[in-house]
Amino acid sequence: MKATIVTIGDEILIGQIIDTNSGFIAKSLDKIGIQITEMLSISDDKKQILDTFLSLQNKVDLVVITGGLGPTKDDITKHTFCEYFDDKLIQNDEVLDHVTALIEGIFNRPITQMNKDQALVPSKCHVLFNKVGTAPGMWMKKENTVFISLPGVPYEMKYLVENEILPKVVREYKRPYILHKTILTYGQGESLVAERIEDWENNLPEFIKLAYLPAPGRVRLRLSARGTNKEILEKAIDENVISLTKIIGDIIVGFDEDETIEVVLGRLLTQQGKTISTAESCTGGKIAQVFASVSGASSYFVGSVVSYATETKVSVLGVSQQAIDAFSVVSSQVATQMALGVQKLMKTDYAIATTGNAGPLKGDADATIGTVFIALATPSGVIVEEFNFGQPREKVIDRAVNKAFEMIQKEILKNL
Amino acid sequence: MKATIVTIGDEILIGQIIDTNSGFIAKSLDKIGIQITEMLSISDDKKQILDTFLSLQNKVDLVVITGGLGPTKDDITKHTFCEYFDDKLIQNDEVLDHVTALIEGIFNRPITQMNKDQALVPSKCHVLFNKVGTAPGMWMKKENTVFISLPGVPYEMKYLVENEILPKVVREYKRPYILHKTILTYGQGESLVAERIEDWENNLPEFIKLAYLPAPGRVRLRLSARGTNKEILEKAIDENVISLTKIIGDIIVGFDEDETIEVVLGRLLTQQGKTISTAESCTGGKIAQVFASVSGASSYFVGSVVSYATETKVSVLGVSQQAIDAFSVVSSQVATQMALGVQKLMKTDYAIATTGNAGPLKGDADATIGTVFIALATPSGVIVEEFNFGQPREKVIDRAVNKAFEMIQKEILKNL
Repeated sequence: MKATIVTIGDEILIGQIIDTNSGFIAKSLDKIGIQITEMLSISDDKKQILDTFLSLQNKVDLVVITGGLGPTKDDITKHTFCEYFDDKLIQNDEVLDHVTALIEGIFNRPITQMNKDQALVPSKCHVLFNKVGTAPGMWMKKENTVFISLPGVPYEMKYLVENEILPKVVREYKRPYILHKTILTYGQGESLVAERIEDWENNLPEFIKLAYLPAPGRVRLRLSARGTNKEILEKAIDENVISLTKIIGDIIVGFDEDETIEVVLGRLLTQQGKTISTAESCTGGKIAQVFASVSGASSYFVGSVVSYATETKVSVLGVSQQAIDAFSVVSSQVATQMALGVQKLMKTDYAIATTGNAGPLKGDADATIGTVFIALATPSGVIVEEFNFGQPREKVIDRAVNKAFEMIQKEILKNL
Repeated sequence: MKATIVTIGDEILIGQIIDTNSGFIAKSLDKIGIQITEMLSISDDKKQILDTFLSLQNKVDLVVITGGLGPTKDDITKHTFCEYFDDKLIQNDEVLDHVTALIEGIFNRPITQMNKDQALVPSKCHVLFNKVGTAPGMWMKKENTVFISLPGVPYEMKYLVENEILPKVVREYKRPYILHKTILTYGQGESLVAERIEDWENNLPEFIKLAYLPAPGRVRLRLSARGTNKEILEKAIDENVISLTKIIGDIIVGFDEDETIEVVLGRLLTQQGKTISTAESCTGGKIAQVFASVSGASSYFVGSVVSYATETKVSVLGVSQQAIDAFSVVSSQVATQMALGVQKLMKTDYAIATTGNAGPLKGDADATIGTVFIALATPSGVIVEEFNFGQPREKVIDRAVNKAFEMIQKEILKNL
């Protein structure tokens, strides 16, 4: 079963917004065994929309379209959809009741004609009822291809994918199995990892594909197996992961597809009943944000102090002015005091602190651009390390955040 | 002049990573008057890559490709590129010297054959020298279409777009003018704004297109004019913005394309020599992160306390346990004390605080899911407001962050 994802909207083609919808839809469909052949972003232009639909007709089983369903004049998807299916728009009473209740009841505004028009749908479509917004989704089949039109607002799209589309597809279609296994490695570059596992890679069976997903400081290896027999796929993946672990077990830190290092760490901290806090200068709160992005983080992530100003390091975190004067604000001494300061302030078992110069301009210290000190306070002392992450700014910050998580993980694994 | 952007990589098609490269490239090309016809994401599959190249041949002037240039086996773009142009790979000595210096000198690792192979390029290509990474970009023309292949690592791609591609295109090609003007409005929904400006919208000249870009709590209106005479476009845009301001001046908060509310606020705070800090519970540091995302923010954004744990509100921010017991942690009293606490702690003129229940589960308080209190401490007192932002969680957080910025802006504009 094959699908293509189409995003409609000029705001994407001029780079004003980043399309995150396609990624969510792809991940959701991939999980139930549907292969995504292509993603397209096209203009709010009737001819281009119709041409795109026509080019996908009978080429894939499913076309999932987002965007252009709003109430305003630039939203032309619904009319174009209707034209493609040679259908006419009719009022859906259930949708109208819902839109009225939402606008008048929740938003407390008088309902307008534009709002009411949201309840118009093609007469032959299956309506995907949108409980969290005003624009309904639409499901229509032509010959061998189902076209699904969804609103572009991310949480409305997500609601419809999870509550309407996935259950309907699972119910009505037979699908092959796709199995992915992601192996998270830390600390070695893509080409070094590739050289180490070259023989193993050459011996992978035909139906297993390997991909390298490098990021600063880490490489994810993704194995994808496709076939009809789930057991065979699972067995082959398992065997190959075991043989891989024998070769690069020293740099493997996790396995699950969604098992990022922050999820692994969250589980370890919860198991051990330990808490953590952060004190961040050059990373600007990004470590805290990564911690907080994990559902249930409040049981181990207590809080954070983002100390942008040097003075805040002294007044809030208790860094000594003498240390700043003697060693500068970008130094192992200041990183250490920041970590100890926030550990005490937030009363946590662990605390991680960063201070550095991410560039492009030099800040309050003379340190070379790219220099970052990371200190980890533990129940038994402080570990501090100096790094140079080069340039540009975003790479320095990303690598510092990754390195911070790596330092925490190493330390916490010691307690297992 | 027309361009299509092609992203190559299975990791995008299974939703494992979000493609942010296309948006950056689109924005960069749009600024120099190049129209993006389409964005495509396709598989690391030789046949699909060749078919895509062929389908774009002579249809657009420029095809910008990212991804698949790494050193490992799953990176097939370079060989496929070479095959499409019926060319062979040769060693580029300048690239080899650079790769060697980077791997041995900076990364301090022995150079591998895979690293060395990065210096192989098609014999007829114009090499786009990549100072910040190991994979060079390639520029090759076939008949009427230029194909440009770039590495998928975002900062390497960005470096090559800004330092190699844009200057070369500007030098060598004649382009039309594209002018965009974005009008940022706050506080009214898309359909209400649309009804208010309906007559104005109907009277826009043919060459100006209007788009609505809604987000929780705000709507951006984007005017795009395309033509050959820059003066005529500018005049038409200016006149229409003036007439628009006469209609909805009450909700307009900014104009520039990149002029987000945090940029507007940053400029106002800098002009007035004022500082700000944040104390965040339900927004988890997101307000701080938005402040910190603006270049030069350190001159007015002093820092932040993210108080995930209730106890941190007491011990770090000085919220009274009595207030928590009497009114609960989600209350106007606690929001007020958090704002005053961080204002004092960080010694700032303004401080904004959030406490609420974003869901999906109830937290430390009984407040309805969606309830958020936002308090703004100013030099002369505290303003606190209660909101219900509904569901789901991400909408609640987004709307709370937007509302916080709106409250700060309203207050700061009073001082103009």
